[in-house]
Amino acid sequence: MKPATPKGTRDISPAEMVKRNFIFDTCSNAFQKYGYLQIETPAMENRDILSGKYGDEGDKLIFNILNSGDFLSKVPGESLGNAASKNLVKHISEKALRYDLTVPFARYVVQHQNDITFPFKRYQIQPVWRADRPQKGRYREFCQCDIDVIGSGSLLNELELLQIIEEVLSKLGLEGISIGINNRKILSGLAEKLGLEAQFEDMVIALDKMDKIGIEGVEKELVSRSIHKDSIDSILAYTKITDLKQLRSHLKGTAAEEGIDELEFILGQAHELKLKNVKFDASLARGLDYYTGVIIEVKSDKFPGSICAGGRYDDLTGLFGMKGLSGVGVSFGADRIFDLLEQENLFPEELSKGPTVLFVNFGEAEALYSLKLVSQLREDGISAELYPDPVKLKKQMSYANDRGVTYVALIGSDEITSGKFVLKNMETGEQAAITPEDLLSTLS
Amino acid sequence: MKPATPKGTRDISPAEMVKRNFIFDTCSNAFQKYGYLQIETPAMENRDILSGKYGDEGDKLIFNILNSGDFLSKVPGESLGNAASKNLVKHISEKALRYDLTVPFARYVVQHQNDITFPFKRYQIQPVWRADRPQKGRYREFCQCDIDVIGSGSLLNELELLQIIEEVLSKLGLEGISIGINNRKILSGLAEKLGLEAQFEDMVIALDKMDKIGIEGVEKELVSRSIHKDSIDSILAYTKITDLKQLRSHLKGTAAEEGIDELEFILGQAHELKLKNVKFDASLARGLDYYTGVIIEVKSDKFPGSICAGGRYDDLTGLFGMKGLSGVGVSFGADRIFDLLEQENLFPEELSKGPTVLFVNFGEAEALYSLKLVSQLREDGISAELYPDPVKLKKQMSYANDRGVTYVALIGSDEITSGKFVLKNMETGEQAAITPEDLLSTLS
Repeated sequence: MKPATPKGTRDISPAEMVKRNFIFDTCSNAFQKYGYLQIETPAMENRDILSGKYGDEGDKLIFNILNSGDFLSKVPGESLGNAASKNLVKHISEKALRYDLTVPFARYVVQHQNDITFPFKRYQIQPVWRADRPQKGRYREFCQCDIDVIGSGSLLNELELLQIIEEVLSKLGLEGISIGINNRKILSGLAEKLGLEAQFEDMVIALDKMDKIGIEGVEKELVSRSIHKDSIDSILAYTKITDLKQLRSHLKGTAAEEGIDELEFILGQAHELKLKNVKFDASLARGLDYYTGVIIEVKSDKFPGSICAGGRYDDLTGLFGMKGLSGVGVSFGADRIFDLLEQENLFPEELSKGPTVLFVNFGEAEALYSLKLVSQLREDGISAELYPDPVKLKKQMSYANDRGVTYVALIGSDEITSGKFVLKNMETGEQAAITPEDLLSTLS
Repeated sequence: MKPATPKGTRDISPAEMVKRNFIFDTCSNAFQKYGYLQIETPAMENRDILSGKYGDEGDKLIFNILNSGDFLSKVPGESLGNAASKNLVKHISEKALRYDLTVPFARYVVQHQNDITFPFKRYQIQPVWRADRPQKGRYREFCQCDIDVIGSGSLLNELELLQIIEEVLSKLGLEGISIGINNRKILSGLAEKLGLEAQFEDMVIALDKMDKIGIEGVEKELVSRSIHKDSIDSILAYTKITDLKQLRSHLKGTAAEEGIDELEFILGQAHELKLKNVKFDASLARGLDYYTGVIIEVKSDKFPGSICAGGRYDDLTGLFGMKGLSGVGVSFGADRIFDLLEQENLFPEELSKGPTVLFVNFGEAEALYSLKLVSQLREDGISAELYPDPVKLKKQMSYANDRGVTYVALIGSDEITSGKFVLKNMETGEQAAITPEDLLSTLS
């Protein structure tokens, strides 16, 4: 058997791990400073919780978990012999892996509503699983990094999310970012004006693909969804409007006006707070059907697709019977941000540094002598290592190199006797003969 | 539908989350200081990788993932109608959730052997899943926190692990800890001496249950495994020996001598390094069959069961075709350590602190004024929040209380005019009228 990870999944190596942690720590630190609280939910949810929440396409991508033990015992009498996979699932699988963090969060809020102080500001950084066709940059296990406020309808929440997005992306060193905002109410107003209320969802799903399939693709998609040519022209013309006043004059008397009010407030305040990347984008739609207000999508001019997105949903917890709890949130695409930082060479150099000192192992007595120094360094919080085996110096130096060690300490029996040993700086190649006391005082 | 987590799993609330992070951060910081590198592996492994690695009992506890799409299409012709669950699994499930971190780690090492610099010191903090019967303190999803060195047979690695264990547990504030060590070679020598080589595994499995079922339980278990009464008496007598010299005289000429040499070296050096909790424990056996040398188990006198355990394995990667790579590692039971710290009230108080300041929201104009102060505080790295809605003061103060906020700032329209506002210390109840500049200089 050739050992390998399952198709579409991958291991994270130490070098990747420190970079991922840099992203997660940057996010967490910002989230905490803004008063958001972390939660985690189990990898598995009951299938009832997840199914029907992501549309037909999404449902197919959910990983189901086979019931433990004699799972066939729950299959009704005749079902098995001529069973179809689709009908059998419910009998042999009660649980599934989470597909995103939003639905489990809605479940969490409803389940723990009596223990939560609202407005509840939470963040969550966990993997999700989707049985998508694996392709470059798209995995079957990937990490989401979500931040939501639930139980407050105030636009100050949207504003705060925009502040957090700017802060996180700037701390990550990213430039060429645009934070597009739009409002589902404007899209509703547009549908209202064009008499397309019944096809609102078709319109949103088609528009959401603009990035991937271009304006012509969207046009085709709208045609295929039986929207009239004139309406399509109007839709596409509206999505090019950049001026909210102009949009208001066109959509007077529709639901769009409220959406425009909201965007004007947010854009005005974003300006006051010097959030320089926030821009109105009339073509923004977001595919998920639970959004009801402001929608947000963050792009980089150096990278296709969005690196962060979200919006306001007025009734997500309604899915689980708790009505009227408005929320708003965004999700940072940690894996995409990783790829972008890697591509632009933006990860801080110090992330790839190894331990400060490696002590070469010349034999048991020398190693035990060095071990005491290593322990003292560690007590002072300095990362230090003793090579565990007395192998050839060349091999130990090559290990030091691969690990990105800053200094190598060479303590043989002569050095123990003389009380002085060589400390080699692996970056500059410089060497100096020093005492153990020198070492501790230099590095501490 | 009542929203609930699947049986045996649970959500982690914000209050629990900060405590868990305290444990993980303490572990990670120590691991890094000792030069260990973090990796992660996917939640799913190919079923072949996992099955047969945990014994019959373990195999049954693995969660299998149903193949996506038309999973029945791979079931051979007649199999389905009269299928047994046990035989059907391999046709409808290719992947499973990881059961521990050790087997995936072995798979990782073999798969990436050409990219790894040995000795490879790695740590890994990830959840694992077991379809165990849920009970108090035992969950179907729980977190393991593993640290291993692979590719070095030196006992300095065992010594280092003992140092790390002492450091982590002491940083967590735990007292009353004992770090028991034994050696599988001693148990082998004992089996050799008693002519029980063929029943070595039975002996180990029975002895491993000492904590749970007591000495009489172990006796019964050994009887049920067809070990002769005289041998049982001898085994139990040996496990009570506390002196290595005495043990050596009894087990002269067997494999035990090498094991005793190793323990003498480690105990001697542990003494030199002032590791005060390390003790020889002849009754220690460890249930897993891949251990071949030193074994370690850490207990608290305030808590049943072990909170950290591990040992040396000479050929774990041999499972995947890479022979002769010796390794040693331990696993910290993060959930048990959590329960123990909670029980002993040892989590630092500052963990439950909320944001430093909450600004009360008296209306749009006041809120926007406060928002600028909030933003300035955050720029200085101070966690601050503005309540998003202009609701009743009582509700906002109650929110501040629940969130564990240190200060509340009350800025109404009069305060904006006068340039002074009230800052209330929620811990002492003290109030002071201050200017925005005072606020920034006091808290920054």
